[in-house]
Amino acid sequence: MTNYMQTALEAAAAASARGEVPVGAVVVGPDGAIVAQASNRVEELCDPTAHAEMLALRAATAQLGQERLTECDIYVTLEPCALCAAAISLFRIRRLYFGAYDSKGGAVEHGPRLFGQPTIMHRPEVYGGIQEVESATLLRDFFNKLRET
Amino acid sequence: MTNYMQTALEAAAAASARGEVPVGAVVVGPDGAIVAQASNRVEELCDPTAHAEMLALRAATAQLGQERLTECDIYVTLEPCALCAAAISLFRIRRLYFGAYDSKGGAVEHGPRLFGQPTIMHRPEVYGGIQEVESATLLRDFFNKLRET
Repeated sequence: MTNYMQTALEAAAAASARGEVPVGAVVVGPDGAIVAQASNRVEELCDPTAHAEMLALRAATAQLGQERLTECDIYVTLEPCALCAAAISLFRIRRLYFGAYDSKGGAVEHGPRLFGQPTIMHRPEVYGGIQEVESATLLRDFFNKLRET
Repeated sequence: MTNYMQTALEAAAAASARGEVPVGAVVVGPDGAIVAQASNRVEELCDPTAHAEMLALRAATAQLGQERLTECDIYVTLEPCALCAAAISLFRIRRLYFGAYDSKGGAVEHGPRLFGQPTIMHRPEVYGGIQEVESATLLRDFFNKLRET
């Protein structure tokens, strides 16, 4: 059986190896198959919105040929920011599973708590803290290495 | 002298003619030249995040060959949603000028009021309500026509 969060963590580790902040995301279809996976490519694409979730969501709609991902779930290694939380709602994702909590940039359990806003059009089910230690370790190691150089 | 909001309104009207919700956006560089303009292409690109602002911001960074738009301003015909407001912050836009207020989907003066959140990394200066009647009329006409068909 596929451990989706493990796959997202591997994508995050690959981002780290490319010098990108290690965040990975996996979109899972209604049959349990992985539809798309992506990791952070902000530096590579010179695009501050090229977050793992954005890339995975867009790749999933391209793969499925449909505009909404109503029966799909997303696994992300880090609590989504406001941009990605808004995108998850716009794509009509069914369930959001995330790893580490992000008290600074997170917008699901922190900051604007976007899915709790009365004006939000669609709220996924949310499950946070999955393999959060692995995810947080990847991020901490990445930033520690940055500081050393 | 260029009326940037008028250019954004023309982009919005072009979107309407293509069957897209009429929203237009223009990114203006530090020298006052238009760097990029775009309108909503959600239907065409089969991407619910293909909002005018997202497309204009990405086109502007591609055009300028830089990841941030620190000295640039954006003109949008409608109050940005949470996705676009977050993107405007991530791209480090200096000033946001928008047209019609959006009590349902807006995230600047409504809903999460994203730029008022203590966790937001960058806040642009905000000027709302510019040529709002023209913008709101475009949107109302578009939705009225949809209802008739």
